[in-house]
This record gives sequence, C-alpha cells and structure tokens, in this order.
Amino acid sequence: MPAWQSELIARVADEVIAGDLDESFPLYVWQTGSGTQSNMNTNEVISNRAIQLVGGELGSKTPVHPNDHVNMGQSSNDTFPTAMHIAVVTEIVERLIPALSALHEEFLAKATQWREVVKTGRTHLEDATPLTVGQEWSGYARQIEQGIERLNASLPGLYELAMGGTAVGTGLNAPPGFDVEVAARIAQLTGHPFVTAENKFAAQGGLDAMVAASAGLRAVAVPLMKIANDIRWLASGPRCGLGELVLPANEPGSSIMPGKVNPTQCEAMVMVCIQVIAEDSGVAIAGTQGNFELNAMRPIILDNVLHSARILGDASVKLREYCIAGTELNRAQIGKFVGSSLMLVTALSPVIGYDRASAIAHKANDEGTTLREAALATGFIGADRFDEIVDPAKMVGTP
Amino acid sequence: MPAWQSELIARVADEVIAGDLDESFPLYVWQTGSGTQSNMNTNEVISNRAIQLVGGELGSKTPVHPNDHVNMGQSSNDTFPTAMHIAVVTEIVERLIPALSALHEEFLAKATQWREVVKTGRTHLEDATPLTVGQEWSGYARQIEQGIERLNASLPGLYELAMGGTAVGTGLNAPPGFDVEVAARIAQLTGHPFVTAENKFAAQGGLDAMVAASAGLRAVAVPLMKIANDIRWLASGPRCGLGELVLPANEPGSSIMPGKVNPTQCEAMVMVCIQVIAEDSGVAIAGTQGNFELNAMRPIILDNVLHSARILGDASVKLREYCIAGTELNRAQIGKFVGSSLMLVTALSPVIGYDRASAIAHKANDEGTTLREAALATGFIGADRFDEIVDPAKMVGTP
Amino acid sequence: MPAWQSELIARVADEVIAGDLDESFPLYVWQTGSGTQSNMNTNEVISNRAIQLVGGELGSKTPVHPNDHVNMGQSSNDTFPTAMHIAVVTEIVERLIPALSALHEEFLAKATQWREVVKTGRTHLEDATPLTVGQEWSGYARQIEQGIERLNASLPGLYELAMGGTAVGTGLNAPPGFDVEVAARIAQLTGHPFVTAENKFAAQGGLDAMVAASAGLRAVAVPLMKIANDIRWLASGPRCGLGELVLPANEPGSSIMPGKVNPTQCEAMVMVCIQVIAEDSGVAIAGTQGNFELNAMRPIILDNVLHSARILGDASVKLREYCIAGTELNRAQIGKFVGSSLMLVTALSPVIGYDRASAIAHKANDEGTTLREAALATGFIGADRFDEIVDPAKMVGTP
Amino acid sequence: MPAWQSELIARVADEVIAGDLDESFPLYVWQTGSGTQSNMNTNEVISNRAIQLVGGELGSKTPVHPNDHVNMGQSSNDTFPTAMHIAVVTEIVERLIPALSALHEEFLAKATQWREVVKTGRTHLEDATPLTVGQEWSGYARQIEQGIERLNASLPGLYELAMGGTAVGTGLNAPPGFDVEVAARIAQLTGHPFVTAENKFAAQGGLDAMVAASAGLRAVAVPLMKIANDIRWLASGPRCGLGELVLPANEPGSSIMPGKVNPTQCEAMVMVCIQVIAEDSGVAIAGTQGNFELNAMRPIILDNVLHSARILGDASVKLREYCIAGTELNRAQIGKFVGSSLMLVTALSPVIGYDRASAIAHKANDEGTTLREAALATGFIGADRFDEIVDPAKMVGTP
Repeated sequence: MPAWQSELIARVADEVIAGDLDESFPLYVWQTGSGTQSNMNTNEVISNRAIQLVGGELGSKTPVHPNDHVNMGQSSNDTFPTAMHIAVVTEIVERLIPALSALHEEFLAKATQWREVVKTGRTHLEDATPLTVGQEWSGYARQIEQGIERLNASLPGLYELAMGGTAVGTGLNAPPGFDVEVAARIAQLTGHPFVTAENKFAAQGGLDAMVAASAGLRAVAVPLMKIANDIRWLASGPRCGLGELVLPANEPGSSIMPGKVNPTQCEAMVMVCIQVIAEDSGVAIAGTQGNFELNAMRPIILDNVLHSARILGDASVKLREYCIAGTELNRAQIGKFVGSSLMLVTALSPVIGYDRASAIAHKANDEGTTLREAALATGFIGADRFDEIVDPAKMVGTP
Repeated sequence: MPAWQSELIARVADEVIAGDLDESFPLYVWQTGSGTQSNMNTNEVISNRAIQLVGGELGSKTPVHPNDHVNMGQSSNDTFPTAMHIAVVTEIVERLIPALSALHEEFLAKATQWREVVKTGRTHLEDATPLTVGQEWSGYARQIEQGIERLNASLPGLYELAMGGTAVGTGLNAPPGFDVEVAARIAQLTGHPFVTAENKFAAQGGLDAMVAASAGLRAVAVPLMKIANDIRWLASGPRCGLGELVLPANEPGSSIMPGKVNPTQCEAMVMVCIQVIAEDSGVAIAGTQGNFELNAMRPIILDNVLHSARILGDASVKLREYCIAGTELNRAQIGKFVGSSLMLVTALSPVIGYDRASAIAHKANDEGTTLREAALATGFIGADRFDEIVDPAKMVGTP
Repeated sequence: MPAWQSELIARVADEVIAGDLDESFPLYVWQTGSGTQSNMNTNEVISNRAIQLVGGELGSKTPVHPNDHVNMGQSSNDTFPTAMHIAVVTEIVERLIPALSALHEEFLAKATQWREVVKTGRTHLEDATPLTVGQEWSGYARQIEQGIERLNASLPGLYELAMGGTAVGTGLNAPPGFDVEVAARIAQLTGHPFVTAENKFAAQGGLDAMVAASAGLRAVAVPLMKIANDIRWLASGPRCGLGELVLPANEPGSSIMPGKVNPTQCEAMVMVCIQVIAEDSGVAIAGTQGNFELNAMRPIILDNVLHSARILGDASVKLREYCIAGTELNRAQIGKFVGSSLMLVTALSPVIGYDRASAIAHKANDEGTTLREAALATGFIGADRFDEIVDPAKMVGTP
Repeated sequence: MPAWQSELIARVADEVIAGDLDESFPLYVWQTGSGTQSNMNTNEVISNRAIQLVGGELGSKTPVHPNDHVNMGQSSNDTFPTAMHIAVVTEIVERLIPALSALHEEFLAKATQWREVVKTGRTHLEDATPLTVGQEWSGYARQIEQGIERLNASLPGLYELAMGGTAVGTGLNAPPGFDVEVAARIAQLTGHPFVTAENKFAAQGGLDAMVAASAGLRAVAVPLMKIANDIRWLASGPRCGLGELVLPANEPGSSIMPGKVNPTQCEAMVMVCIQVIAEDSGVAIAGTQGNFELNAMRPIILDNVLHSARILGDASVKLREYCIAGTELNRAQIGKFVGSSLMLVTALSPVIGYDRASAIAHKANDEGTTLREAALATGFIGADRFDEIVDPAKMVGTP
C-alpha cells in the first residue's frame, strides 16, 4: 500500500477516534456474532470519508476500498477481538480500578479513624464477641483490596491480541511478523502491555480471556455487595434498627413518609453488583458457545463486560462520595450495644469452662438481667474477677 | 409378544420398582445425554432377571432380549423423558407441594394469632409506618401461596409424555395408538393426569417442560429466601439486634461463645433456596443445548430438578417444625419500637402537609426527642390533635 | 382535592405520557431501590408544570404540591410496582407476544409447506431414523407455541396491582376502596385485566410476579435458542457442512473471505436468548433480596424484564422477516443424506432382530458400503424384502 | 493443656482422618451456615472417643471436654473456613489439575501428530479458509493450558487461613501467635503453601477466596465445553454429518437404532461443564450473602466447589481415556471438504481484489461448479496462476 493511501486511512481513523463521525455508526449489539458488521461499518466509513477527502465519488470504493485497503491484512475475526481487549483493558485499568482504589482508600481511612471504637460483633445476625469498628472496616478495606488484586490477576489474557490471525488464525493474507508488530504498536499507543497471542486458534475460537475478565469484575462485585449490605444494615433505624452508623442524607427518602432517609447509595451499589453477577453469567454461557475457529457470541460478551465495568466504576465513585466519605458513628448506640451483649461471657469460658459460661448467658437472657448480675448470682465467679475479665476493650486483640 | 413374555417382563419390572434389584443399577448422572445407558441398564437387568427366573443362561438374551423384547416399541429417546416427567411430577405433587402447603398453613395460623399486634414497618431497612405482625405474616403466607400456585401452573407440560415417539418422534417401530394408550395407563397407575404429547418432535427435541418446572421450583425458592431472611433478621439479637421474634433454640449455636443461639433453620432454608436458583440456572442452560431431534442434556436436567424439589421439600418441613411452629413474639420489644418510630409522623401529613411533617421528624431525630415533643415544639399541631391522630393502632387499616 | 386541581394534574400527566416533558426525566436505573427518585421526579415535574400552566412560581410547590397533591394517597412503594406491572404487561402483551405469534405462524407455514420432504433425523448429532422436514418444523412451531403459552401463564401475577397499599401495605392516607377503584380505572384505560392485589404486604414486600414474568420470558428464550441453533447448523456449509437449508443472504458475511454468507439473524437470536437468560438470573437474585415491607431492588428488576422483553420481541421480528420467511430447502442434499443413512436399518430390527440389524450397520460402516449391500452380504435378508422395508418414506409415520 | 490430653486428642483425630469413625458423622450440608454443627460433631466425636480410650463415661465430657479441650482456642468461625480451604486446595491441586494436565498433554500429542493434515476451517459454522488439524488442536490444547493457568491463579486466596481469628476475627481466647504457627504446621503437613490470613475480619466475614476458586473452575469448564462440542460435531455422522473425526465406540448408542455410536464422553463433559457453571453461580450468590463478621453460607459454598472440582476432574480423566486417546481422523472426508471449499477464494483476494473474488465464489455457489471452474469462466485469472495461488497447503501459514 502506498504511503498516501495508508496516511489517508490513518487520518480518517483519527477522525473516527475523535468521534467526529459517530453518527455514521448506527449498529447495535444484536448483529452477527463475529462483529463483522461493526468492522465493515468502520471499513466503509473510513473508505467513504477518505474518498470524500480526495474528492472522489462516495460508494465508489475508489481510491480507498473498504476491504482491499482499509481491511488489508485483517479480518473481523482478528480485529474485533483485538478491539474488545483494548476497550475492556482501557475501561478497567483507566476507569474502574482507580475508582475502586479510591474507595479502598476511603475505607482504610475510616478503619484508621475508628480504630479503637469497641462495638459488638455479630455472627449469624446474632450478638457475638466484640471487635472495634476499625477492625470491621479494615475487613471491608481488605476485601476490596483483594477484589482489586483479583481483577488485576484476571487481565493478563486480555493483553494477548488476536490481530494477525486473520480469518481462522493462520494469518492468511497478512504479512509475516504483522501480529508481533501490530501488538507492539498498540502497546505503545495505549500504554498497556499488549502482546500478540501465543496461539491465534485459541484466541479466535474462544473468548476465555473475556470470561476471565468478567469473573474479575464479579470478584469485586461479590464483596462490594456484602459491604454495601452491612453498611445499610448498620445504619438501619434510626429508632427501630441497629443504628450504629449515620449515613449522609442526600435526598428525601419517601414520597409519603416525611423525614425519611434511605441508604440510596448502598441500594444502588447492591443493584449494580447483582447486575454484574447476572451479566457475568451471560458472559460465561456465551463463552461456551464457540464453534471451531470462531466464538460468534462476541458482541454480547463485549457489551456485558464493558457495561459491568462501567456501572461498577460509577457506583464505586458515588458510594464513596455520597455515602462512605460522610458516614459517621452513633457512638452512644454502639456503646449501649456492646455493654449489653451477653456474648461477653465468652471471655469467662477459659476460666470457668464453657458449660458454666453458657449457664450464665442463658440465665441472663431468660431473666432479662445483665450478664454481671447473672454471673454473680450463679456464684461461678466473683465480682472483682468478673470485672477484670469481662471488659470489651480487652477482648478485641490488637485493634 | 406372547403373553408369557410380557407377563414375565412385567413381573421383573415390579421387582425393579420394589427396589429388589437396586444393586444392579450402578450408573451415575454423567453418562450419555439421552439416558440410553440407564435405559439399557434397565433393559438388561430385566432381561437377565427374566432369564434367571425361567432357568436360562445369563447374558444369552434368550428368551427375553433386552432390545427386541424389553425395549419393544420403545427408544431411550421417548422412554427416558417419560420417566423424567413421571419422577418429577411424583416428587413435586406428592412430596413438595404437601410440605409447602403445611408451611403455608403454619404461616396463616401465625398471621391469625398475631393479627392485632401493632409493630413498626420497615422499608429500605429504615423505620416506616406501622402494621400488625399478622399483616406482615399474612404477606409471607400469601407469597408462599402464590409460589405454590406458580409451581402448580408450571406442571402442565410435565403431564405430556413423549412415549410413543420412539427414536426421533415419528413413532417408528411402535404400534399405532401406542402413545395414547401408554399415557392413559400411566395416568391410571400414578393417579396423575398424564396424556400423550401433542407433538413428539417438540417433546423429544426440547425439554422445555422441565425448564418450566424448574422455574416453578424457583418461584417458590425466591419468596422463601426473602421470608427466611426476614425471620432471622426479626429474631436478631438478643440484645444488639431487632429482637422482635424469639425462635426456638434447637441446638447450641457456637463452639466458642457459650449460650449463643442461631437461626439455623432459616440459614439452611436460605442455602437451599440459593441452591435451587443455581441448579435452575443449569437447567436453563442445558435446556438450550438441544440439537435437532434430541436434547442430549437429560441426566443433568433431571438430576437438578429432582434434587431441587427434594431439598426444597425437606427444608420446608424442617423450617415449619423446628422454627416457625415454635416462634414467639417479644411483645415488649415490638411495643418499644413502634412507639418510638418517627415515621408515625406520616399520619400528620394529610393534616399539616408533607413539609411541616417532615420538619417535625427531622427535628425529633436531630434533637433526640420523641415525635410528640418535637411536634408540639413546632406549634404545627396541638397535643390533643396529635394524640388523636398519631396512634399506631389507627394507622394499620384493617388488620 | 378540588376538581380544578385534579384536572390540572391529569392534564399535565397527559403531557408527560405524550412525551412532551421527556427531557425533565434524567434519572437512570441506579437509584434508590424503591423507585422513589423516579416517583418524586414525576411528582415534581407535574407540580412544576402545573404551576407553570397557572402562572405560578416554579419550585414554590403552590398551588400544586408534589407530595400533598400529586402524590396524594400514594407512596412510591405502591405506585412504582404498579407502574412496573403496567409497563411490563404492555410490552409483553402488545409487542412481544404478537411478534412471537407471527414467528410461530411462519414456522407453521413452513411445516405445512415441507410436510412431505423426507430427511434424515439426527440424535446426539449422529444420523438417526428419518422424519420429514415438516415434522421437524412442526416441532419448532410447537415449542414456540408452548413458549407463548408459558409466557401467558406467567402474567396473572402482573395483573395484581399494589396501588392503594401506600407506604407499607396498610393503605395509610389513602381513602377506603381506592385500591379497587384505581385498578378498575387502570384496567379500563389500558384494556388489560388489572385488579387490586389481594394482599398488599406480599405485593410490596416481594416482587415475585416480576420474577415469574421473567421466567416466562426465559421459557420463550430457551426453545428459541435451540431452534436458532438448529437452523444455522442445518444451513451450515455451503460445501463442508450439513447444507440442508439455504438462508437468505442479507449482507456479506466476511471482511476478508469474499462471498461468505453467515447466519446473522440466527446468531443475533442466540445472543438475545443468552442475554434474556442472564438478565433473568439477575431478576431472580434481586427477587430474593427484599426485606420486610419492601423489596428495594425494583429498578434493576424492571430494567432487566423490560429490556429482555424488548430484545426478544425485536429479534423475533427480525428472525422471521430476514431469515425464516426466505429460508429454502436444498432438496438434493436432503435426499442424498437420507438415502445414505445407516440408521434406516432400524426398520429391519423388528424383522431380523436388533443384533443382526446392528451387525449390518456396523458392516456397512466399516466397509464403506451402502446399507443394502451390507444387508444382502450378510444373508440376513433378501433384496426384495429389504427394498420393501427399508424405505425412508414409510418410516416417518404420519407427516 | 497437659501433654497427655493433647496427645490423646491428636491420636483420636488421626482415627477420624483415617476414616475409622466415619459413621459418627451423619450431618449433611443443610445445617447452620457457619458449619458449627459439623465442627461440634467433630469435637464431640473426638471427646467421646478419647473418653472411651481412657475408660471414661461417654457423654460425661470428662476428662476431654468437646469445647474446653478439643475446641480450645478455636471457633467454628475460624476452623471451618480453614478446613474448607484445605479440602478445596487438596482436591484441586492433587486431583483436578493432574487430570487436566494429562488431558492437555493428550491434546498436544494429537496436535503434533496431525500437524500437517490440511482441513477446512469453519467460522459461523460456515466454510472458511483452511488450517491444519494440528493447528485446530493446538488451539484446544492452549485453551486447556490457559484454563489450568487461570485455575492456578485463583488459588492464592485459598492459601490464606482464617485459623486464629476465633469467633469474630479478633483472636479472643487463642494464644498470641497461634494463627501463624498453626498455618505453618498445616503447610508442613499438607505440603501446600498455607499461611495465616493477613486480615481475619475479611477472611471470616467473606468467602471471596472460595468464590474466586469457583471462578477458576469455571475458567476450565468454559473452554472444555467448547472443545467437547467441537469434537462431537467434527465426529458427527457417520454419513449425514461432518465426519472428520472418528471417536472410539465404547458402548452401543441406542436401544432402538442398531449400530448407532454416540459421543458419550463429550456429552458427559458438556453436562459436567454446565453443572460447574451452575454451581459456580450458586457460589457467587452465596458469596454475596455474608453479614457483618460471618458469611453464614459456608456449607453450600464448600459443597458446590468441592463437587464441581470432583466432577470436572473425573470427566477429564474419562474424556481423555475413553475418547481423545482413541480418536482418529477420517482423512478422506477431511480432504474432500477442504478441496471443495469456496473460501479458498480468499487467497485470490490480494491478487484480483475482494469484489472480483466475491463474484467468483458466488458464481461457483450459484452454479454448483468448482471454484476453479468459476474463476476461469470469469476471466479474472488464468489457470496456471489459479493453481499456483489456490493451494490449501500454502494457506495455513506455519502449521
């Protein structure tokens, strides 16, 4: 291809990238499974715009032919999955992970700030032994951090590009070495470590790297759903719930109940997480449906993965800004709960044995007394010893 | 087939049904997708046992041949889906639905018993306007009732039997009318309204009736998960949770925390519901994977549907017996909550307007006062009028 | 409320319905789980537009207040699920089912047209006994018909409206009988048989009717995926596949392989079906996540169900128009296959026994001969008898 | 704890490990969500068996108490997830991965063996440009290899053990340093690189490592389903399908169709893969359902992950032994197909242009001629040049 032709194509491609020709891309996701229609759309738009720039006749395919020139050495079968990988890596690395990292930082900051506030633990929704609010939130932070690690660990497959495999992976009609060179050039242009796929038959017959990336997104959604649920539960009330947290009130919560405040950001996050899990299930099913040299379920896989990444990133930004950053403790409520918990009895267990400790807890529960009253009434332990041992602040280990 | 031969086969089949030959059926679910191996296992066991009964040589296929005689007029392709339908209908109608109905009755009884106990409502986990415990539980009962209705509505497809379609649905090698007669006979023997499938190509190429039945199971699991979660939340505590319900304490809840009681039956039910939803997703995927005249994913579909029906039935029995039947109210806690809820202000809204009512609720919340104190302090309403209007018992409609 | 006020509200509501104020509804799905933000958006737009019409001050809430007037007797908790049911019923009954019915008719027409064309059956992807193309397509038609029946059977729950339950299902602040009247009026306006929900606590605490409708959509998607796959397989080739069908060539199939034609509409349908299955899984998960008097996962459930209904309808229209309607048979290929199939031997089985018939089939396969040659070589049957029995046209029952 | 006591407990624990007391473990998966019942079952069996060994009274809890001694320094909340991780790592690393690796080796061997056999490629199920059988199988091998890599990459979270966190992650009642020491000892005993979890609150409040491992299993199942499907399609026929592969005939395929051979191992693998995907969806849902300091969905998560790992391993062994190892090529069929494919025209495209090449392919297809005949008839290219360029063996790149 002469230089004037390749330069013309590159110039138009830059216009496409800049969005100047967006209205010429009307296709939607429900097209052929290889993405050929989107690829040909691109080839034809570039061809016609190039023709227009040199004063030719639209649709004449001269002097820039959509297949012979724009698509030279290429096939939808290798360019489309290459574009999929670039798009998803860009979205995940440049937008989602920064959003998640900022959220992680916010949780860490809260964990530090509330490091020594002792609260009741809860297992099975039931009162359990105490921990600090900081410990609880350090767990949230760590879950998010590991989610990010898992998401990162899911990316390597996306760095392998099919480009150069052309129609069925053999590289027919592409020059030797084209695959290596184009990947290097894409790596340079994007700043991401793209390389050519070791085996083009695997890269075009399957979409396993996309399925893995989708699982990486799910690995973030699963803990975020747990965390968002915890936060709205801990903020439940204000009078008839747990009430340990006070969330920012960003908007009226009810059209009928005046003064109601709801955990909107947490609910939005939970819904986003469910959607990510659902779209991931579609990605997995579609990932199984390849046949021979092509998985013809590409558009649905791309659409779901990009959409999941985007809503997860957006929801992470909003949860941080409009909820976590402004969350406060209701220290009175936290203190009231931890002092009343019967599970403080656990500290007595190594001293008086599990069975006697259990009898004390049951006695207090049945009679509606404090743990201390019940303990002293049984005679299993004296007041001084009780006060020395049953101290929530001593039961939280290293906060 | 001479009568002695068919009678001999029927006699052995009765032995198989009675379980006398169970040890001769070693196959598991991961076999050929048509169930042919299980069908041939049956044919061969019947053949050999019949041969044994008449003193013949095992494996000789004489005088009862597994294909020519036991399988006469049949194919795995029509007998196996027929057996699937019979097995699933039996499990659902004879075991699961009675278990669900008993659970429904128990919820209805509780709804009646607690009809007039006023409690705080909760939406978004946040305090809302009041209702009665009976109303809340009538909702649970109705959800279960509608679940049963949906399960029943999912069964008609299962009453259509493929039998008589033989290899590909044309009925080759089966006598005319065999399909109608065999369905009538199966209906008579089982007491369920089985009929021959209107279109055998649909009945053998797809397993849509099984997918629908699986959705019927899910239609029960979805509300049961919500209900089981509600109950364990309402019973959370005993001191640091909602504490409105007291569940039976069937076993110690913790190996380390003495005296702990956990909502074991609710958790088991939640896990069962998740498993039903998961297995249903497998049924749907497998249901899409038919090709031409056969869906060769039968064993996995049957296994999942039967398993889901069984665990849902078992969990329903246990939830009723070991949890719901013995659940009690903590009336003190319920009364304390409903009296303190700021959302009682909603009753004032039609009188003083939403904005003033909202101001009262916010004032009470910010200042930590009662709603009454805040209302009177604003001057928007007088004490008598407040006491007349803001009465939880008047806010629950017809309990 | 005085008549001038209600009429003003109604007048503005008609403007909203007509789409004149669409730009004032900027919210997206990731909001509060009750839909309160969308409901308040509506209330506020109506309030302000009404104020504008009477020359008042925007935002003054006078003389039409968004809560006190527009939302009078209502709560997001009952209006939003009511709107969900109306929207989904409209989409399914008025758009999706007609599209499916037209597709069903097209399949029936093909089944009639090709009633007597004998072809090879296939089970396990392997050659099986013959049937006619019409029989095969009658199976497709029946699967679609039953899918429509299942979809219809999933709708009754949607006809029950929560309206009148207000905040938590008790109907607080709504006049007695409002629920029945409003449902009757909605039924009249829409032409669909809406009624008030028997139990408002169930209708607002759960979204089981939406989960059931979603399963109804899946009940259509599962067989459509199987059918679309069958069709693209039967059309595979043109030289190295099954090649029994010839699909319309609507667009070039490849950017690199000249002259390639691909089963685009079938692939689009398969992707749509997978997406419906995936979105349904999200609906089911969200359906389990209600708490107490509200399921706060409404927007995601509504979005998925509406989207699934829409893409399924669109894909059904396009599959019919651009694929099924123009599909032709390759009779030469069909005839060649059915004549060569070794499974025609099945017709011999009742005559010479399964074992001898099996030996003939294996002999022909091993030696690469015709079935007739192998049969005669074994001496198990004579030529005349073979020709009389092994006639594909006699093996298809009643086409 | 005195040495005699700890040694006695260790001795009995060895009996438990050896399986001698298996009949004393009757519990099933539908129990409390923390696994407490299984943990207490273990504690009580060890207690009683120890008592029996020293001649004490069963049930007396003396001299070895199930809580105070056997469970000393432990809680179900840390021991059960520790046991989950050990069990899953053992199953995956010691059984599943070796089975997958052997399967991978078998595919590699076939890829080498068939390196130079040229065949037609297929995209969208339609004829495409050629590749070699070895190339196709190298793609399968690579997909499996990457699946194993992804599975391995999913394991690090499992190497982190919760042990030492006790009830809520604070380590209450466990000696300092216990967590580090016990992990080191478990690593030594198992030979796997277990370490103590960096953050016990995350390790006990979530089960994200299990969800990740489940995604790792799915990452293997997705490509295996594609591969198993490809193989059964390539082996379809023997006369009316693709027929490029000949699979071992391990058992009769049909009870009615004599001589039928079906791709049983492929079907079993496909079903296993669907089940793994389904069980994984349950693991993800359950993984979201933690609350506060505990995810009480442990038994269902463990059961699904272990089951999936086991069936995937078993199916991999069987697919290799009974299918892949004995698979042969039908070289005549492969040669016939590749020679007839119209997509060989692609090689002409760079020479005569896409549009002329397309016209040739369409002409050949419409007129039922060979590609050569059509090409020469158009005059776009001469016979010598055609023969030089259109040579399948030159179109496969480096086999």
